[in-house]
Amino acid sequence: MCFYFCSNLDLTMVTLKDIASAHDRIRPFIHRTTVMTNNSLDQLSGSKLFFKCDNFQKSGSFKIRGATNTVELLSQEELDKGVATTSSGNHGAALSMAVKRRGGKTKVVMPINTPKIKVNNVERNGGEVVWCEPDQPSRERVLNELVIETGCTVAHPYNDERIVAGQGTAAKELLEDYPDLDMIICPVSGGGLLSGTLLSAKGINPHIKVFGAEPSEADDAYRSLQKGEILANETIDTICDGLRAQIGSLTFPIIQEHVDGIITVTELEIIEAMKMVWERMKIIAEPSSVITLGALLKNQEFFSGKKVGLILSGGNVDLNELPWI
Amino acid sequence: MCFYFCSNLDLTMVTLKDIASAHDRIRPFIHRTTVMTNNSLDQLSGSKLFFKCDNFQKSGSFKIRGATNTVELLSQEELDKGVATTSSGNHGAALSMAVKRRGGKTKVVMPINTPKIKVNNVERNGGEVVWCEPDQPSRERVLNELVIETGCTVAHPYNDERIVAGQGTAAKELLEDYPDLDMIICPVSGGGLLSGTLLSAKGINPHIKVFGAEPSEADDAYRSLQKGEILANETIDTICDGLRAQIGSLTFPIIQEHVDGIITVTELEIIEAMKMVWERMKIIAEPSSVITLGALLKNQEFFSGKKVGLILSGGNVDLNELPWI
Repeated sequence: MCFYFCSNLDLTMVTLKDIASAHDRIRPFIHRTTVMTNNSLDQLSGSKLFFKCDNFQKSGSFKIRGATNTVELLSQEELDKGVATTSSGNHGAALSMAVKRRGGKTKVVMPINTPKIKVNNVERNGGEVVWCEPDQPSRERVLNELVIETGCTVAHPYNDERIVAGQGTAAKELLEDYPDLDMIICPVSGGGLLSGTLLSAKGINPHIKVFGAEPSEADDAYRSLQKGEILANETIDTICDGLRAQIGSLTFPIIQEHVDGIITVTELEIIEAMKMVWERMKIIAEPSSVITLGALLKNQEFFSGKKVGLILSGGNVDLNELPWI
Repeated sequence: MCFYFCSNLDLTMVTLKDIASAHDRIRPFIHRTTVMTNNSLDQLSGSKLFFKCDNFQKSGSFKIRGATNTVELLSQEELDKGVATTSSGNHGAALSMAVKRRGGKTKVVMPINTPKIKVNNVERNGGEVVWCEPDQPSRERVLNELVIETGCTVAHPYNDERIVAGQGTAAKELLEDYPDLDMIICPVSGGGLLSGTLLSAKGINPHIKVFGAEPSEADDAYRSLQKGEILANETIDTICDGLRAQIGSLTFPIIQEHVDGIITVTELEIIEAMKMVWERMKIIAEPSSVITLGALLKNQEFFSGKKVGLILSGGNVDLNELPWI
């Protein structure tokens, strides 16, 4: 078992109260997503599974939670100057949607080789694409130029307390619906969703166990926890396009203090879990979501007999490029 | 518009009371499936859409409703002699599941060229495959031999009052949840689901309009209604593998008397609707289900401003063979 266990302390900047406030703030603008169960996967796994379906969330992922919380907290003056981000994935689309709802404009800095489906997803939600070269320095340079030129606010995809508080509302809803869960498994990338889930779930029930699920091919959180300091990803060669980011300086300490373990999952295990979710649950969840089921199935004995919440974080998949075809 | 309109009379063998009895009988053994809405498809269509999600139903389709009703009505003696069918699709799998639950055995007569996924689906649900040659006479001969040898009961996929009453429970649930629907669109193949839907919906609300959706490539119901007598399919060259059957002698008169029209839908329109449902609703529905959305979208003006229920009949799709890839 490739768990990393660490002790739980009790300190952080974002509190359960912040998450509750974020929830009140964003509730009118997001879906309260359903929690699905599935007899066939329960039988297969030996656990009782509760899937929090944020693949059905507005903008197609949980990202609208943190984005909406952040955008709602902007002053009118800030909003008028515009919002920008370099995330071309689910955060870029969600941010564009949240900003548009308040009547503002979002600029999303994207490398010129970004897949068309991501460009469409941002544009459909009202975002404007600003092109850059396909490397990190160009991305940051273009973003900085935007800030200097327009005075726009940069909305980071995860390293921001407003984002963490917003993302924590998914686990809050899950535990409101099923208070007696023994454990939660949550995907980990930059750590916004996992740190929000940890603060929310452990704030509500200090006895609950929370695990992160991370691709073996982008295992910076796992290695960083082992080392006790933030390490960079050595590869990001994973089909989980939502889980390639680097763990954040804000999110890492929260995860370090609260998480019960990180489970790394191979590409084959992710694809197998994805096919299971699609075939048996008849829902479309992206690789970055179904990794939670992959993490559980590879440690079946450990989770056996437990009530486990799995956060299905999104459903934005390019249907022309399925990993098993 | 390729509607066929006909007048509503009021006579049939299956009554709303029979459907209510069927519902009481099968309720403990089936899911009460959710009804999904989708802002994005509402905006696109100009209607308010209510998707009855029997793709989430046990066995992956509505067929478990009629199959369970039929199997529950068998005597122990009948059950002991076994049950048989020639349907290798969703009915075969659902029947196998319903019979197995009562501790009996199902034999499903299948042509030797049946796709592996259908064989698996029957076997996973406890059915036993009996092979025949890939032609109708061989299928019927093998089934007849089974009946003579074992005294088993043949459970027809649609031309049976117990099946019609069971299938009618989907629309009953839909209208219990949303009593003020203006219209329902339902797929039509052998006519079990459509005739059950008609009796159920018009029994509950005589003012509701009910339309059948049928592939242009297997349009026997449409042509039969025009002609006033049952005509055979001229082609069955459609990706809707659940909609290739011939309209039944029991179901045709019910449809003839009650339906407000049959809408034929081309293969391209079906594929487009399927992609829309997958991409925007994040659910897996088979071509035979999404044809209902295709029927609506090609007659957008007609359905504009109306509250329309769409019966998503099943979610059994071969994920290795998607029609747009």
